[in-house]
Parts: sequence; structure tokens; C-alpha cells
Amino acid sequence: MKYNPVEIIIKKRNGEVLTRDEIKYFVQSYLSGEVPEYQMSALLMAIFFKDMIPSEVKTLTQIYIESGVKIEFPESLHTVDKHSTGGVGDKITIPLAPIVAACGVKIPMISGRGLGHTGGTLDKLESIPGFRTDFSVEEFKEKVNSLGLAIVSQSKEMVPADKRIYALRDVTGTVESLPLITASIMSKKIAEGAQNLVIDLKVGTGAFIKDIKTAKILGNLLKDTGEQLGQKVTVVYTNMNSPLGFYIGNALEIKESIEYLKGADIPDIDIITRTLAKEMLILSGNVGSPEEAEKKVNDVITSGKALEFMKKFIESQGGNPAVCDDLSLLPQAKYELDIISDRQGWIKSINSQNIGYALVNIGAGRKTLDSVLDYSAGAYLTKKIGDTMEFGEVIGKLYCNDKEQGVITAQKILDSYEIIDSKVEKQKIIFEIQR
Amino acid sequence: MKYNPVEIIIKKRNGEVLTRDEIKYFVQSYLSGEVPEYQMSALLMAIFFKDMIPSEVKTLTQIYIESGVKIEFPESLHTVDKHSTGGVGDKITIPLAPIVAACGVKIPMISGRGLGHTGGTLDKLESIPGFRTDFSVEEFKEKVNSLGLAIVSQSKEMVPADKRIYALRDVTGTVESLPLITASIMSKKIAEGAQNLVIDLKVGTGAFIKDIKTAKILGNLLKDTGEQLGQKVTVVYTNMNSPLGFYIGNALEIKESIEYLKGADIPDIDIITRTLAKEMLILSGNVGSPEEAEKKVNDVITSGKALEFMKKFIESQGGNPAVCDDLSLLPQAKYELDIISDRQGWIKSINSQNIGYALVNIGAGRKTLDSVLDYSAGAYLTKKIGDTMEFGEVIGKLYCNDKEQGVITAQKILDSYEIIDSKVEKQKIIFEIQR
Repeated sequence: MKYNPVEIIIKKRNGEVLTRDEIKYFVQSYLSGEVPEYQMSALLMAIFFKDMIPSEVKTLTQIYIESGVKIEFPESLHTVDKHSTGGVGDKITIPLAPIVAACGVKIPMISGRGLGHTGGTLDKLESIPGFRTDFSVEEFKEKVNSLGLAIVSQSKEMVPADKRIYALRDVTGTVESLPLITASIMSKKIAEGAQNLVIDLKVGTGAFIKDIKTAKILGNLLKDTGEQLGQKVTVVYTNMNSPLGFYIGNALEIKESIEYLKGADIPDIDIITRTLAKEMLILSGNVGSPEEAEKKVNDVITSGKALEFMKKFIESQGGNPAVCDDLSLLPQAKYELDIISDRQGWIKSINSQNIGYALVNIGAGRKTLDSVLDYSAGAYLTKKIGDTMEFGEVIGKLYCNDKEQGVITAQKILDSYEIIDSKVEKQKIIFEIQR
Repeated sequence: MKYNPVEIIIKKRNGEVLTRDEIKYFVQSYLSGEVPEYQMSALLMAIFFKDMIPSEVKTLTQIYIESGVKIEFPESLHTVDKHSTGGVGDKITIPLAPIVAACGVKIPMISGRGLGHTGGTLDKLESIPGFRTDFSVEEFKEKVNSLGLAIVSQSKEMVPADKRIYALRDVTGTVESLPLITASIMSKKIAEGAQNLVIDLKVGTGAFIKDIKTAKILGNLLKDTGEQLGQKVTVVYTNMNSPLGFYIGNALEIKESIEYLKGADIPDIDIITRTLAKEMLILSGNVGSPEEAEKKVNDVITSGKALEFMKKFIESQGGNPAVCDDLSLLPQAKYELDIISDRQGWIKSINSQNIGYALVNIGAGRKTLDSVLDYSAGAYLTKKIGDTMEFGEVIGKLYCNDKEQGVITAQKILDSYEIIDSKVEKQKIIFEIQR
């Protein structure tokens, strides 16, 4: 069937529902070069304003998947993955994946790189000397089958439609569209072969979703889309008002993850990791009850089995597992600057986004896709919302290789804390679980 | 000043007002190739949804004008032009321009070609053997100075920003945006050197503005923008529910215009032409009172001076003025088919847009910019809203060179009349004049 792309744009612009054939024609013709970039960007902006109904989102996701290779695992493997919508200091995947895999669950994970104020799991893992993520589809499948865990970057053959459209959204102001976000996430998570998916949907000032109401709309859309396409989905809504854990920065977050697996007390990381791990076990049918899931997760952490798995995982991906025993093998920054409080009171809010952007200046994140990362750069920040801050108190450290930029960055971080004179309540970490 | 185009898109997308520097940067960088088509189309769609305030429209218009050559005439010339927002059978410019010029007013007119369901003045004029519209800016100025009238096509040097952005709007579903329409019209009408402008704002089923409320928003925006940029503007809101006059088609509309100047009774054409002519004389300061304007217009028509001017005008543009005395010198179609009514009752509405599109099939209009026109093709339609139709009555003729297509087109035209059993009132032609 031959369509007129302008008519499809106008139809969506006028708020009408596009048919499966229209969506298919538009996306496929875009990939083949018949529909030019400027028509796709006009359609994306029209979708931003006029939205899509669930059946359109399902179709778009399906067509994204069909644009490339779809990996299949035997149903008996009960593969499960986790996706996070992203936040500052979100290193949860790094301790979580070995924990869940150590419980005997198969995890095929295709992950992304950082851009803007949030870091990417692949970047963090690649700060481990030797660690690779550029495996072929065959190697990926082999690792999931044998070890039970592989974390790789998206290959060119996988969901090329999303790859091209995401790049276009990024430069046309059409990133924050719930239907487009849903198709982008779910197409990758289904194409990678995960039969079950737990979504960590971050809500708060440091996430791109600021309020629980919008979060629920997105959560429902993600869950419906996955389920319509044969994937079981659980959505966990978590607090993203403070940066997660105490460390932000690529190698620093690996260090923190290893310390956590060794027993370090990091409350928010602990709660989120255990919650997601439990949901992954329940969803994949690996346990008989939530209590059994909780016990299994606790066992692999306290017994050291998860840490042992972490070493095998690092080795399987070409990295040096000795980093787990000797953290000094990770990239180290030349300077460690104290971050000293210049104010006093209770912390009412933390602008995590500003902290993320400030750290981009010392190389901890990317300004553009071709920015070079400084794996060793980052910050250690001890304070959360509801904590107090005293004049002259050391509230953290800044790790950098450019002292001058480091001093500026430390000040920007300090300015990201909003302090008031009266007591502030601590916030809960998990808002809701939608099974 | 260096801007990030994505930030400008997002700003407009979020409904904020763009600064002069932001608009300037975006348009100029688009023209220079620094901002790609896909970012411009995303911005255009964001403007479609989030609109622009009058000061933004003024700025956009100004930047359009500054993108090319601006023609200036001495203030003493009191140049005046007319612009129509377009409708089926709208040949008003053709009798109007010689009438007003015969009254001693200078008319510098840059006109357009037809696309879709409406014809273009240039196409109609070019159906006169020898008639040219591709004059240089110098020739254009010289003709306005000496004869007092020139109608030419837009040269590459004039408002290139509009030329490129209009082409992009056409293929991205962003034509129907009042701020973009305003900048497009007013930039050309100011750049051509018209110090005064009468706008024929068509309202109705056959126009792109369907209701008077939207028409008034556009009318105010056009008038404000012109006046802010030093041009005096009158807006005349006219009825576009029936095709204008009795003929539709390029050479046929020339024939009808000449017949009108010779005294033929064509009520709607007569009312609109006289109204616009009067407003052009008043606006340019050529007369002391509306009564004087009316008298002057009547004199040049009844005395034959307007027809004489028409001949000089045709000659000045390279055409054969003998067509005025011998209409058979105009391109003639091979077939004349009767259009015979297959229904009975009062005409409640006429879908002029469908009639326009139907005539495209026999070559009277363009499907795409490179379609070849058949100047001789078109229709003669005697019926207006409020008229009656009898079974078997000949309600018009179809002129074509492809008989088979002609028969299909005649039926499509018939199907464009909505007939009811009860009496329908005739409609007024002029809705309102906004001086």
C-alpha cells in the first residue's frame, strides 16, 4: 500500500488515530530513505502534542522490533531483565544483575551509554580494565546460556528503527513523549529476548518524570505494551529526588557496587536492589513465594555468592576480576577535593540534575555522543534529603584530574542543595510496585 | 550569539515566547545550512501547536524580508497591492489591477502559481499567448514607474527564507498555521515595495479559513504585522462558499475577466472587484472620499478605460493584447461537455474544494509543483448557493481535451452540490471591511 506521508502527518496533527499500515509505511519508508528526516521529525512533534493510543504504541513498538534482529531464548530459560528510566547515581544494575543471576535466573541485558546528566551502565562497566560490551548476537546468547548473564551494547542489527529515530528525537526536542519513550524502551527489551521485565520507573526532580501521575501513565503504557507483545512486566516506582548511593561517576560507581556486594551499608541502594531482585525472581517464576524470593536474594548477598558471580561476570566480559579484591585497580583521579558546606540547616531538596550536569564538566558524563569520558572523575556525597548540614562540615569529595574545574564543580554541587531552617522528613525510597 | 537549535525548539514546544535573536539565529542558520531541515520542521510543527504572539510574528516577517532583496518605491508613488488568501475561481486580480491602475495608482504585484484546488494568478495570465511574468527586479520597477502596473513571479532574490520554508511547510503538514501564513504573506507583500495593501481574506468552505472567527484572528495578525513594519493594511472579509464568477480554469478566467471589463454582468465578481478597488484607492490616498473612489472606479469601467489599460498591461508583459478583442485567440479546449443536473431542489452548499480538485484531473490545476497545466481546461458553472436546480437542466459546461476524464470530472462537479427540498437564502458576498 502506498501512502502520502504528508497526509499521515496531518492526520496525527489533527489528533486522529493512525492505522497499523500507516505507521508501518511511515517507519519503514523512513528507514529506506523514502520518507526524509524532516517529515519524520514533523510526525514526531505531532505525536508529542497529540499522543498515541495504546494500540498505536503497540504497533509502533512491533514495527521497531521488526526493523531488526529479534533474539529468542527457549521459553524454559525464563529470561528476565531490568530496565531503569534513569537517574543520577543509578548504578543498581551493577550489583543487581550478579545477585539475580546468582539465584539461577538468566539475564540477557542490552544496555545504553550515558548522555547529559545521567550516566550509562555500559560506561560504568567499561571503566573496569579490559571490560568489553561489543559482543556479537551469538556471543551474547552463548553467555546468557552458559554463565546466565551478559550485558552488551545495542548492535547495528538490533532495533535500527529505534536507533535512528532516537537520534532524531534527541535533536528535535521530541524526547519527552510517552508513546515514543515506550516504543523505544519496549522494542529493545523485547528484541533482546527477555521474557520477563522489571522496570525501575524513577520519579522525582532527578528523573525525567517529575510526578507520580505522569509516572503511572508511562508505567501503564510500558506494562500494557509489553504484555500485548508477550512479555510479562512489573513496574517498580522509585524515588529519584536524591542521587542514588553515595558515589556518582563511572569507576566510583563500580567501586561502590563492589563494596555493596561485600556488605557495605548503603540504604537506598540496598532497598532498591533487593526490591528489584525479588520482583525479578517472582516474575520469572523462579520462586514459589515472595518470602522465598527475599530469602534467596539475602542468601546470595550474605554468602558472598553474588560477589563471586560478579567476578565471573567481569571475566566473561573480558574484564579484570581482580578489581573486586583490589579496588585500586580501577581508574583513580589525581585530585580528591573536600566538598565543604557553606550553609547550615535541613536539606529540603537536592537538584540531582544540576549535580549530573556539573559532573559532566570534569568528564564524568558526556556533553555530546562523541565526548571522551574520564572514568575516574566523580563525587562522593554523603547527604540525603532530610539530613542536616553544618557550616564547615565536609559533606563529600570531588574526584578529578583538572583541579580548577574541580573547584568550580564542587561549588556547583554545593549550590544544588536547598537548605531550610526547620526539620525535613526523610523520604521513602519505593513508592509502589505494580505487578 | 550562538544558540542551541534544540533548546529553541523545546522553548517553543513548551509554549514560551522566542526572542528576536533566537528567531533570527534559527532562520538564518537554516538558510546557511547550519540548522538542518529536520530541526526546522520540528520548530514549524511546534509553532503550529503553540502559536506565536504578534511580536514574534513581526520579527519572523522582518527576518524573512531581510533574507533577500527589498524593493523600494518613492513614497510619493503611494504604491498599493492586493492579496487574496485564495479560492476556487478567484480571478479578481485580473480585472481589478487594470481598473485601479487606470485610476492612476501604482501597483507593484508579485504573485504566485496555483497548487492543489486553487489556481494562481500567474498561471491564468500566462494562458494569454506570449504573456511573461519572469521579469528582473529592475524591469519590474521600471514597469511600475512607467505603466503603473506589473505582475511578476517571485525572483530567487526575493524573500528566499519564505520560499524555502514554504516548500518545507508544504511537505510537513504545517501550512495551516496563522503566524506562519502571516509571515509568508506579509514578507512578500512588503518586500515587493507596496506601501499599501488590501487583503481579500476569503472565508468559507472553499477557502482554507472556514469560519469568521479564525478569519478575524488572521486578519488582525496580518494588519498588525503590516502596520508594525510600515505598511498600511485594509482587510476585506469575503464569502468563499461558492466558486467565484461563472468560469474556473486558466484561459477561461481570462476570458471571463475581459468580458467583465466589457460590461458582462457577473454579480459576485463585480461586487468584490468594486469593493477592493475602492479600498485600494482610499488606502493609497488617491481619493478624497469613499464616494469619490466609487465614482472613479465606475468611470474607468464604464468608459472602457480599464479595458484599454488591460491591453497596455498585456502588451507590457509580452502578451498579445488582441485577445481582448478576439477571445478565440486564447487556448481552446477540444471538447465542451454539458453538465446536466441529476437532482432537483435548492442549492444549500457547494463543495468548491472538491470542484477544484476534480478540475485538477483535466489539467486545470497542479497536483505537484512540476505538473503541466492545460490552460484551456476548466468549467462554466452557472449556479450559486440559493439557486434552484431542475432534473435534466444544463447547469454548466466542462472544457477538456480528454473526454473520458471530462465525463468523470463533470460527475464529480455535480456531486459537489448539496441540494435540499426547502428554499435556501442567497448569501452576502462581503462580510466586513476592516480599515
